[in-house]
Amino acid sequence: MTAYDDLMAHQRETQALSQIAGRLGWDQETMMPRGAAPQRAEEMAALEGVLHARRTAPQVADWLEAVDAAALDDVGRANLRHIRRDTERASKVPAALAARIARVTSQAQGIWAEARADNDFKAFAPTLTEVLALKREEGQALAVGGDVYDAMLADYEPGTTGAELEAMFGALRPELSALRAAVLEAEAPAKLDHAFDEGAQMKLTRQLAKAFGYDMSNGRVDKAVHPFSSGSGLDVRITTRTSERDPFNCFYSTIHEVGHAAYEQNINRDYLLTPLGRGVSMGVHESQSRIYENQIGRSRAFTGWLFGQMKDAFGDFGVADEDTFYKIVNRVNDGFIRTEADELQYNLHVLLRFDLERALVSHDLQVADLEAAWNDRFEADFGYPVDKASNGVLQDVHWSVGLIGYFPTYSLGNVYAGCLNEAMRRAVPDLDSQLAQGDTSAATTWLGANLQTHGGLYEPRDIIEKASGVVPSEAPLLAYLKEKFSTLYNL
Amino acid sequence: MTAYDDLMAHQRETQALSQIAGRLGWDQETMMPRGAAPQRAEEMAALEGVLHARRTAPQVADWLEAVDAAALDDVGRANLRHIRRDTERASKVPAALAARIARVTSQAQGIWAEARADNDFKAFAPTLTEVLALKREEGQALAVGGDVYDAMLADYEPGTTGAELEAMFGALRPELSALRAAVLEAEAPAKLDHAFDEGAQMKLTRQLAKAFGYDMSNGRVDKAVHPFSSGSGLDVRITTRTSERDPFNCFYSTIHEVGHAAYEQNINRDYLLTPLGRGVSMGVHESQSRIYENQIGRSRAFTGWLFGQMKDAFGDFGVADEDTFYKIVNRVNDGFIRTEADELQYNLHVLLRFDLERALVSHDLQVADLEAAWNDRFEADFGYPVDKASNGVLQDVHWSVGLIGYFPTYSLGNVYAGCLNEAMRRAVPDLDSQLAQGDTSAATTWLGANLQTHGGLYEPRDIIEKASGVVPSEAPLLAYLKEKFSTLYNL
Repeated sequence: MTAYDDLMAHQRETQALSQIAGRLGWDQETMMPRGAAPQRAEEMAALEGVLHARRTAPQVADWLEAVDAAALDDVGRANLRHIRRDTERASKVPAALAARIARVTSQAQGIWAEARADNDFKAFAPTLTEVLALKREEGQALAVGGDVYDAMLADYEPGTTGAELEAMFGALRPELSALRAAVLEAEAPAKLDHAFDEGAQMKLTRQLAKAFGYDMSNGRVDKAVHPFSSGSGLDVRITTRTSERDPFNCFYSTIHEVGHAAYEQNINRDYLLTPLGRGVSMGVHESQSRIYENQIGRSRAFTGWLFGQMKDAFGDFGVADEDTFYKIVNRVNDGFIRTEADELQYNLHVLLRFDLERALVSHDLQVADLEAAWNDRFEADFGYPVDKASNGVLQDVHWSVGLIGYFPTYSLGNVYAGCLNEAMRRAVPDLDSQLAQGDTSAATTWLGANLQTHGGLYEPRDIIEKASGVVPSEAPLLAYLKEKFSTLYNL
Repeated sequence: MTAYDDLMAHQRETQALSQIAGRLGWDQETMMPRGAAPQRAEEMAALEGVLHARRTAPQVADWLEAVDAAALDDVGRANLRHIRRDTERASKVPAALAARIARVTSQAQGIWAEARADNDFKAFAPTLTEVLALKREEGQALAVGGDVYDAMLADYEPGTTGAELEAMFGALRPELSALRAAVLEAEAPAKLDHAFDEGAQMKLTRQLAKAFGYDMSNGRVDKAVHPFSSGSGLDVRITTRTSERDPFNCFYSTIHEVGHAAYEQNINRDYLLTPLGRGVSMGVHESQSRIYENQIGRSRAFTGWLFGQMKDAFGDFGVADEDTFYKIVNRVNDGFIRTEADELQYNLHVLLRFDLERALVSHDLQVADLEAAWNDRFEADFGYPVDKASNGVLQDVHWSVGLIGYFPTYSLGNVYAGCLNEAMRRAVPDLDSQLAQGDTSAATTWLGANLQTHGGLYEPRDIIEKASGVVPSEAPLLAYLKEKFSTLYNL
């Protein structure tokens, strides 16, 4: 056994244990009896303790020291890069600080939830201040003199900086605002107005998952309050939800999560339980969920097929034809909530959060002024005022649990999806005629072979560039959105 | 922190991790996608590795050495007794032997399943010989010069010897045989002949679980190929199965598993994640599942109520009245399979296995002669020959996975249930009038307060003696069975 073999054997067990932690998370949201929560907390804490000890085990540093990198192939060097990065990260953050962050954020989530229910930002502000201070301290430890926000970002999107995102998002925002304004001045399509049986929604949603290549022999679909995808490799489970008046919530949540899950399922099986056997970053992950959901799932061609499926499942639901259905699926609505936003407005919600959290980290904005800053920015971008904190600054859980530097990966994922979509359309010129039959295989095969299979082999930006053939930029996404919504709204 | 505090903190985390292993077992039988099996095997192996390292950690021996037992109360001394026993066991068995047993038995199960499908004992014999040799070697290490079978038994039923069981079972066997012969000569009641909707079975089975005090806020009921109960404390899940022609399979599997689960749920919450927070032995566990299933669930009074529930759920299913229903529920049938046996014949199946496995361990019986010995004994006890190995020596998984010394705990559980039933009936004289209303609470409350709440505080035999007020013997079970079946069959 070489040092590399030892290192990888250790790593493999660690990743197997971390898959178990993920499975418990899934169980908690889908199956766990309510009364089990206190015991589950102890179980998770014990498992996290084991994982932490393994990640910071002194042997790992010894093996890393002893590895002969020159003797390794590309895969070996990529594994080494991931393990070094994780080990360095763990060694830079003092254990006491990590423990304090874990403790404070686990309480902060409850305080946030209560403040949101009461629409009372002031009740949450002291906690957010504490979380922010701790995360800033962690960021400083990680940055070692460099940019603190970039260090935070690196946890979710290694190799991307706040300045790069600022440039990209800066170019996106005025164009999206202008397009949005034009759309909202045009005539709006009708809305769905029908009750859709929730059992039939779940049946159709499973068909949709399979239509997008989700492998049920290595996954399953359950209901949960918040849709999510969980696990890597041979066991990747998704959840969705149903709402009687809004079946699109169910179907597009499913397709979105199938995008995440298919990425994990389609990674080269040789990488199973290695650092390469997981999606490489949050942004790249989101590129897959969004291209499945939007560029494919909300396309004119695919919605034409979906319209027929829905008529089969629900009978006449008051929509005359495919064109009307397509407009309803892509209707641009007023609204306060990011997770309910359409394809056109979604990124405006994210950009707001990116600018505000960066300002918080750099001390340019104080927590005491955050709610006012949020409300000003929202009205500037959306044209109407926030009515209550639960529709504004308190709507998302992220900051309460210490996810700072995470929001921009949503929009980066959309930007990446735009790049990939252009390349995919070039590679599969007759894609629409296949999508019109409900056949996504040419699209998902192209994404599988050009991106998903590589897992963590390449750096996030590199795999997007390699797959799409262009240096990632916001231009393809913008061009796609302009074309789509100009046609939809006869602009 | 005293040494005892350190020891218990370590133990608590170990038990939390071991609950996770149990939950993964549940997931595997109920939720896991088929294709996930190879990855799950690695996950389980990694977790077992962690558990083994924690159980054999050198600090545990140091803490045990340093504990001031005189300063502890009853609970503390009982905890210490369990931890010492587990630690000594782990230290006696060489790690290489433990690893070999794990490897061989994990393969042996597949070989057994194939041999059973082919009705070919010879194909399984070499593997069984190997398993037996390894388990004997382990038994010798554990026995340190004492009786090897007793050492094996101690893994499942500490404080009981093979000789004690031999005396008890020896007294049981001729009486059961005689009663069985008399019953089979008498006129047999009718059988069920109706199709019972499986969805309605699951609905009623959940009502039955609740009727027996199963706490759904700390548990759940799912379907699985083999019914089981899994977990301790705040998260105790059960499974059952349905068969369109045989709803009793569903209902009595559920009640049986609720007996196991209620034991785990009703242990004093102060013992959560400590050695006292689990059922104390397999025999005591089985006493709970069997008293729920048989002495309560198959009683004339309770089946009267169940008859009404089934008429509500399924309409007229061709049974005229409560008395006829009671006879059908308790019908004594010919059959080869232990798990399908009725209350009267069940122990004859177990006693056969106990005698044969003891003879195998002591070298009085060779594996090559096992099938013939099984068939001879079966015909002697049941009066008809075994037709094929899958109905005989290959029917149970136990020996293939190294469970030797386990079978007798089934009958010991029945014996214990007999003792407890007499005491419970004395304590709750009007129990039948409550059971006739579907109200089991007086019975389950008595069992909860007198036995279940204590978890691992007392040794198995001691808790049965304490709860029932008698030295455990086969006499109460025999008296109960004679009375029940003499009445049922007008003997």
